[in-house]
Amino acid sequence: MSPLDSLLDDLVAANRILTGLGVLDGFGHISVRHPDRADRYFLSRSLAPELVTREDLQTYDLASNVQDGDTRPPYLERFIHGEIYAKRPEVQSVVHSHAATVVPFGTTKQPLRPIFHMSSFLRTGTPVFEMRERFGNTDMLVRNNAQGAALAEKTTGAVVLMRGHGYCTVGGTIAEAVFRAYYTQVNAELQQRAIALGGDEVTYLTEEEAKLSEESNRSVMARPWGLWKAKFGLKQ
Amino acid sequence: MSPLDSLLDDLVAANRILTGLGVLDGFGHISVRHPDRADRYFLSRSLAPELVTREDLQTYDLASNVQDGDTRPPYLERFIHGEIYAKRPEVQSVVHSHAATVVPFGTTKQPLRPIFHMSSFLRTGTPVFEMRERFGNTDMLVRNNAQGAALAEKTTGAVVLMRGHGYCTVGGTIAEAVFRAYYTQVNAELQQRAIALGGDEVTYLTEEEAKLSEESNRSVMARPWGLWKAKFGLKQ
Amino acid sequence: MSPLDSLLDDLVAANRILTGLGVLDGFGHISVRHPDRADRYFLSRSLAPELVTREDLQTYDLASNVQDGDTRPPYLERFIHGEIYAKRPEVQSVVHSHAATVVPFGTTKQPLRPIFHMSSFLRTGTPVFEMRERFGNTDMLVRNNAQGAALAEKTTGAVVLMRGHGYCTVGGTIAEAVFRAYYTQVNAELQQRAIALGGDEVTYLTEEEAKLSEESNRSVMARPWGLWKAKFGLKQ
Amino acid sequence: MSPLDSLLDDLVAANRILTGLGVLDGFGHISVRHPDRADRYFLSRSLAPELVTREDLQTYDLASNVQDGDTRPPYLERFIHGEIYAKRPEVQSVVHSHAATVVPFGTTKQPLRPIFHMSSFLRTGTPVFEMRERFGNTDMLVRNNAQGAALAEKTTGAVVLMRGHGYCTVGGTIAEAVFRAYYTQVNAELQQRAIALGGDEVTYLTEEEAKLSEESNRSVMARPWGLWKAKFGLKQ
Repeated sequence: MSPLDSLLDDLVAANRILTGLGVLDGFGHISVRHPDRADRYFLSRSLAPELVTREDLQTYDLASNVQDGDTRPPYLERFIHGEIYAKRPEVQSVVHSHAATVVPFGTTKQPLRPIFHMSSFLRTGTPVFEMRERFGNTDMLVRNNAQGAALAEKTTGAVVLMRGHGYCTVGGTIAEAVFRAYYTQVNAELQQRAIALGGDEVTYLTEEEAKLSEESNRSVMARPWGLWKAKFGLKQ
Repeated sequence: MSPLDSLLDDLVAANRILTGLGVLDGFGHISVRHPDRADRYFLSRSLAPELVTREDLQTYDLASNVQDGDTRPPYLERFIHGEIYAKRPEVQSVVHSHAATVVPFGTTKQPLRPIFHMSSFLRTGTPVFEMRERFGNTDMLVRNNAQGAALAEKTTGAVVLMRGHGYCTVGGTIAEAVFRAYYTQVNAELQQRAIALGGDEVTYLTEEEAKLSEESNRSVMARPWGLWKAKFGLKQ
Repeated sequence: MSPLDSLLDDLVAANRILTGLGVLDGFGHISVRHPDRADRYFLSRSLAPELVTREDLQTYDLASNVQDGDTRPPYLERFIHGEIYAKRPEVQSVVHSHAATVVPFGTTKQPLRPIFHMSSFLRTGTPVFEMRERFGNTDMLVRNNAQGAALAEKTTGAVVLMRGHGYCTVGGTIAEAVFRAYYTQVNAELQQRAIALGGDEVTYLTEEEAKLSEESNRSVMARPWGLWKAKFGLKQ
Repeated sequence: MSPLDSLLDDLVAANRILTGLGVLDGFGHISVRHPDRADRYFLSRSLAPELVTREDLQTYDLASNVQDGDTRPPYLERFIHGEIYAKRPEVQSVVHSHAATVVPFGTTKQPLRPIFHMSSFLRTGTPVFEMRERFGNTDMLVRNNAQGAALAEKTTGAVVLMRGHGYCTVGGTIAEAVFRAYYTQVNAELQQRAIALGGDEVTYLTEEEAKLSEESNRSVMARPWGLWKAKFGLKQ
């Protein structure tokens, strides 16, 4: 199997893994940048992630134009992916989710912060993208390149929250983007519980702890990825 | 397969989907209006939704009298359906549920409001039907046409909450009524979490955002419906 | 199949149903009174409820002495059952559970109250059995007839909470005791959420509503019972 | 089968049981001391617990050096196990977990306390290990013998919380360590709910109740263990 084949199989697996982990339901998506052409990325056609197969993948340029004359309907919000790839050359994979534990944080002034070591990547901040600021009242979807670019501008770290909508995570690999999408969800649940117990007196990771922890986590990221592929990746 | 056959298959599937999504358990029901006769609707006989098959469907007139001499026991609360169809000609499908995240909202002064784009249909308001106002102490069930009509009068938008009981959603199609029943449940969970984090300072969708979002959602409603049919619709 | 055979099959099914519904885990139990001998009851030997089969059932007198020379270890807390049957002639079935949503109510001054119509049986009150009052410091288990009798005395209605331990429900049939065990669990979850939203301003059922609702529920109790038997009752 | 064989089979089963119970996910581990050599313990190589088989087990000395020239990558945090075995001769099994209900307690001043009889083992206290006190900013992992020894020193009872990380439980048998890991998780959920209902006015077990209860629980610990082995222990 070619490296590209293997990467695309991983993209299919990631769709099912993210559903299995409760990060995605009927909505949300994950993409990967083309390994040989930095100006192309792969994303499923408009489809519930759980149903995605290799045949459903489409190729896009960074303006999110579909390539190869593929006429099947694309996700309305593909611009999220294209604009983040354009803005962030080091990013290789992008997840967009509506996970229930995370959305509430984007609607309040309570910042999402790293409360345990698995989510230390949150140290780079969890800015909230408020669509209304630049675009006024919209249908909340990231529907064009201008909106995608505004979101990408806000995406300065590993995670961006989208008010009244969801969040995105980025990664240097599919596994990292998935890991971050999952542990953002877990961190939100832990933080919600901690705030209910301790109010403002919750101890979060220090900046230095989070930095050291994030480096350390990179060395073990293959472990959950292997598990998740075994559990969810091949399910029909 | 005739359009009517296909519609009734969808009604059976919807019973199983709503159970799979946790919207219904042993109680609750979904109906669809007859596509060719606006004065008739279809609803299962009294049965747990998960067990409903094509053979269990009954035909009712809008006074909720069973047709065709069918003598099998009907749901006690069929009047919910009949009176809403009588009052709201555009409604084609009605769901009644006791979902656990939603019931608490009907018992407090905290209004259920659209907190994310998937539940923008809540923009038309979530009035609380207080049976006691007009009927005094009852067994809480909507047991006759007068009670059904009072509920229908309160059902001015997509959703009506029933104090100490549950809620109903209506839709222009089965898929829309199911979509709304599910995302009402999700919105209630998100809003409960957001209030715990931010108290009164939670940002909800503006009226205009919700309106634009609802129009937009109509174009993607087929995606979760297809997924749900594939996952739950055919399960025995 | 004789009526007794059918009753004992239902007792086995109820063990699995209560596990399937999350009311029981490795601990807790359900019994039924002998239909022909009011001074006898049936209960499994000490075993996780999920594993109970017909062969595991034992017969007890109301002092909770095992009959027929059966030497297999019994549940330590069988006295709960014997003493409730002795005190309450109309009771035919008893459930004892540690369900997670209910235990917290027994540890605070927040009374568990009927918040929706399915749990209207809570109208008869949810007294808290405080073992320490009469027996001082114990291992919290109901280990003898004196402790069982004290609990039975407190069990004036459908449900009794046990501080730091769990709760019991009683019923006129196995199906009713199971129904009440399940909806006590559901009510606790709904009430916890409602209090978080509305504090002291939560609307509960009035006494009259609850009374009417309870009568009404008796007529539909067979519906979830049939569903639960189909879903969980026969699982290995 | 030799007693050692049977013990190692139980260790494999415990890995799957802890995953099945939600105590472990892709991370966390369980070890057992060698029954014949108090200076050796068994632990899987670095692997998601759900995937562990007999072939994955490695042998360590109490300085957590792998034995027999086994070159497969070990868990980074094996020092937790070695140092606890070194410090606590009576301990035969150690679990390390990130369970979501427990982590929040380690980040606030709210002590985890025994709220019901199944978790009476919490009576010996739930000290919080704050890595930062002695080691400054770290990646939060217990990466060497010095850090393991500091944790072991704090592990004076059945459970130790690790701020921003997770917790450990110890036991005189695998079944006891697993039982404690599970009921620590359950207690945290119950206590979180009770605090939301009753604030500071929650009734916990008295010291004497907890002591008596813990003795009593030892006699029934085989029951959930048998159930868990039957349900989860042999799953692939």
